[in-house]
Amino acid sequence: MQVYETTGFPNPARVRAALAYKGVLEQVEFTEVDVMAKAHRTPEFYRINPLGTVPVLRTSEGEYLSESTAITEYLDARFPQKNLTGESPLERGQIHMMQRRAEAMVMDAVGAYFHHATAGLGPELETNQCQEWGRIQEATASRGFAYFNDVLAKHDYVAADRFSMADITLYFGLEFADFAGIDIPLTLSALAAWRERVKAILQSNG
Amino acid sequence: MQVYETTGFPNPARVRAALAYKGVLEQVEFTEVDVMAKAHRTPEFYRINPLGTVPVLRTSEGEYLSESTAITEYLDARFPQKNLTGESPLERGQIHMMQRRAEAMVMDAVGAYFHHATAGLGPELETNQCQEWGRIQEATASRGFAYFNDVLAKHDYVAADRFSMADITLYFGLEFADFAGIDIPLTLSALAAWRERVKAILQSNG
Ligand SMILES: N[C@@H](CCC(=O)N[C@@H](CS)C(=O)NCC(=O)O)C(=O)O
Ligand SMILES: N[C@@H](CCC(=O)N[C@@H](CS)C(=O)NCC(=O)O)C(=O)O
Repeated sequence: MQVYETTGFPNPARVRAALAYKGVLEQVEFTEVDVMAKAHRTPEFYRINPLGTVPVLRTSEGEYLSESTAITEYLDARFPQKNLTGESPLERGQIHMMQRRAEAMVMDAVGAYFHHATAGLGPELETNQCQEWGRIQEATASRGFAYFNDVLAKHDYVAADRFSMADITLYFGLEFADFAGIDIPLTLSALAAWRERVKAILQSNG
Repeated sequence: MQVYETTGFPNPARVRAALAYKGVLEQVEFTEVDVMAKAHRTPEFYRINPLGTVPVLRTSEGEYLSESTAITEYLDARFPQKNLTGESPLERGQIHMMQRRAEAMVMDAVGAYFHHATAGLGPELETNQCQEWGRIQEATASRGFAYFNDVLAKHDYVAADRFSMADITLYFGLEFADFAGIDIPLTLSALAAWRERVKAILQSNG
């Protein structure tokens, strides 16, 4: 099994965290994709992911999977220990719902701000910027922080009252927000406390 | 089980199609949400879906699930007949990946065009428009049509060589494109042939 990733980037970090949590990091060969050198915008890379993004997983049978959520689905079915996507029907629904909210309201909103309203990855890579959209999405992210703070004031985890891929998505979405310079107000104390809990879980499975 | 939907809108249509395909429409009570009258922007509705969108499913235990994909995950686990989200690990990965591509490249791209670059649902509802973003996403949708035409020139279905939620997402994404007035070129003949096949499947389970 092979994973194409770019060190330090938030979406590949989600897949690495899932692999570490399940204790199967050693079964994976990691291949670094030099995004800054446009290695993901080559005909070869577009063949393995037409959207030109990392992470991508290559299964042992040679099939390519992209989209962090789809890769996590695959890993969860293939390595059932320490489930991340839900076991009962209700858990599956809740975890997928909150995962999607964590993407739409935080991870992807921060990404849109970063790529559209800041210098992003630099002029060579950011060839289709839309400043106004970036700023609208910055506001979405800020509302997202407040929304998840409310959720986490009532629950220990983002979905289904246990650790799941929804926590992983939100966690790296907040790391991305720090990196992109979107302020996460200190008054969101439930969010901050949850970040420490998740950090400890991820570190103990590192 | 209860589903909040708005007749004629593309995302609720995805959930209705999944229910029909599984033969469980009769187990659901449908509640119409009058989006044009802003019934989805009330404190009551935000309590059941903080993002203020349809569809929403209320389980028999009284839990609310939103996001069409999450609802489909729930339904597929709860009514295992005629699987829509994948059985083997590889199928799960491929169907989730292609479903996400169908959202990002078609359904959500068309939605962004419709809501941002056209009159959309009218001035009462479209209070945060960004024309330029709408036009960028129209171009994304056009690339999406061509991408899926290539996929469907080689495969009978969008993912895993069988009917799945990825087909449902793309099908209603294309219906939405027709409604929003984005041209789907007639030269994309594999896409057109697949639309007829999916239409027949959905009608025979109606
Ligand atoms: N929805 C995708 C997002 C993947 C994504 O955007 N990855 C970023 C790195 S975190 C990337 O490849 N960016 C390349 C670029 O922007 O050119 C997923 O979940 O994997
Ligand atoms: N990602 C969501 C999208 C839901 C969505 O955008 N629904 C539309 C109807 S198709 C809606 O509720 N629009 C209300 C509005 O735009 O104000 C899903 O998969 O359910």
